[in-house]
Amino acid sequence: MSRLVPKLLGFSLLCALALPAARADTPTANKTPTPKELLEKSKPEEWRKPDPRNLLQMQLPQGKVLIELAPDFTPLHAENIRTLVKEHYFDKLAIVRVQDNFVTQWADPEDDDKGDKNKLRPLGKAKKTLPPEYTRAIDTKLPWTALPDGDVYAPEVGFSEGFPVARDKATGQEWLTHCYGMVGVARDVGPETGSGSSLYAVIGQAPRGLDRNLAIAGRVLQGMEFLSALPRGTGPLGFYDKPEQRVTIESVRLASELPENERAKVEVLRTDSPTFAAMIEAKRNRRDDFYRNPAGKIDLCSINIPAREAKATH
Amino acid sequence: MSRLVPKLLGFSLLCALALPAARADTPTANKTPTPKELLEKSKPEEWRKPDPRNLLQMQLPQGKVLIELAPDFTPLHAENIRTLVKEHYFDKLAIVRVQDNFVTQWADPEDDDKGDKNKLRPLGKAKKTLPPEYTRAIDTKLPWTALPDGDVYAPEVGFSEGFPVARDKATGQEWLTHCYGMVGVARDVGPETGSGSSLYAVIGQAPRGLDRNLAIAGRVLQGMEFLSALPRGTGPLGFYDKPEQRVTIESVRLASELPENERAKVEVLRTDSPTFAAMIEAKRNRRDDFYRNPAGKIDLCSINIPAREAKATH
Repeated sequence: MSRLVPKLLGFSLLCALALPAARADTPTANKTPTPKELLEKSKPEEWRKPDPRNLLQMQLPQGKVLIELAPDFTPLHAENIRTLVKEHYFDKLAIVRVQDNFVTQWADPEDDDKGDKNKLRPLGKAKKTLPPEYTRAIDTKLPWTALPDGDVYAPEVGFSEGFPVARDKATGQEWLTHCYGMVGVARDVGPETGSGSSLYAVIGQAPRGLDRNLAIAGRVLQGMEFLSALPRGTGPLGFYDKPEQRVTIESVRLASELPENERAKVEVLRTDSPTFAAMIEAKRNRRDDFYRNPAGKIDLCSINIPAREAKATH
Repeated sequence: MSRLVPKLLGFSLLCALALPAARADTPTANKTPTPKELLEKSKPEEWRKPDPRNLLQMQLPQGKVLIELAPDFTPLHAENIRTLVKEHYFDKLAIVRVQDNFVTQWADPEDDDKGDKNKLRPLGKAKKTLPPEYTRAIDTKLPWTALPDGDVYAPEVGFSEGFPVARDKATGQEWLTHCYGMVGVARDVGPETGSGSSLYAVIGQAPRGLDRNLAIAGRVLQGMEFLSALPRGTGPLGFYDKPEQRVTIESVRLASELPENERAKVEVLRTDSPTFAAMIEAKRNRRDDFYRNPAGKIDLCSINIPAREAKATH
């Protein structure tokens, strides 16, 4: 066996989504199942198709990025972003900032010190600022999958409706957390939040210090690699200091505004499903030929929520 | 003030290393100092120059990556890697794998299923495998800066000699942790570890489940953006499935093997210095015009250990 294959096996647990068939994935006796093995055994009803009104399709030159909005947590921001997208606000705007181990941010390039305020794209029917939606009252009606291992930042963490969430029963509040792939709303100095005309995606170690300080609009379901692998900006805070460095956004569309055949076919594993629970446990206590010391723990932002191409059959 | 500047300010705390002067960094009354402000006030003696015998200079087409070895924690691996580097083992080998939100890995491209075993580069005087150095007995003589906010994975975490470390007093063991920028040793199925001929750098959310399962050889001090912004591999586990996708390593040199004028001029903030302690506290409890809800907490892998160009004057 090549020296590299076991190395693959060693890393396979942490690999996002299903792995291609590979010798490394051949089950061995009593070993913890891999994500691929668990997903292959999942039932169709354990997957959900995002509501097309919450599904953004952002086309970059590198590829398509799918973002699911989180109206249960940030409804005013979801609605304002829908308004902007329906107006095609983001078309031909740009990724203006990529700061290593932090965020990729897109906005109107004129919205910058060197920009021309007279050329700022109008927000149309969208609001310029919104009330803060940094936290919300805990909704006990939403499905909740708690993690057992605690969290440095919050009294309780888990998953709800496919998003990583922190809770504080003392205050009765819950909030989306800044994990890898979460999409937040850039803003001015508060108390108002931004409009959603400038958004950022987390591309590094979860900056949990931003939790409860910015509104999180949703999560990238597919295409993170088109946001995370961009050249880092060399200007202050990772902004591209030369216009030619920016990545032009070809278009952003709401799936509900597209004809059926142009809507992204994607489904997301339900975070209250048995398969998701099994994936969490497999990651907490991995035992196989490679892992000798299972962590016995897992932190919120280390858990990937699988998304895959939806089969036409269901 | 442009709408973007406050957005910069909002992100400035999390920006790695010193920020360029910018309006966003102008101190305001009673606000928590930014990393830039704290670093500007640091004393020369709070910085250390890495031992040239522990400093790897990896030249990629994109730029130079500086890696500091951690012989206090993984001495056998440090020595074997030094041996490989002195033999110029890595020259013209390649980055063979970039898996999004996980690792960038470099190795001999022939060390692969499709590779030609007869073309494998010999390891020369270096050992093919080493005893595990996954944990070590807690060394109370090493400087230790404990973090106060706990950790999901280990009883205690903090910094020692410029590296993030976890400790378990019950077992008397301590180990380096898989934080962003840490460099680990890829290996076969154990119990032996790898030789150091294939290394990986963490480029995403800290995969702490790898702790105590792989040997960590060191940390990237500078040039992470040259490893983290590479195109993700489209093969299984992020391996580049086409040879032309690989990034050729021009050379890897040990600073101690280079003439003085070719040695990288770099210094690292001491993790037992007052300025580093102030940076941790500023990140735990940030208050300024932007932050309304300071986390009051910080997790191990969210703390950047500053490195900068060393002044010739000391």
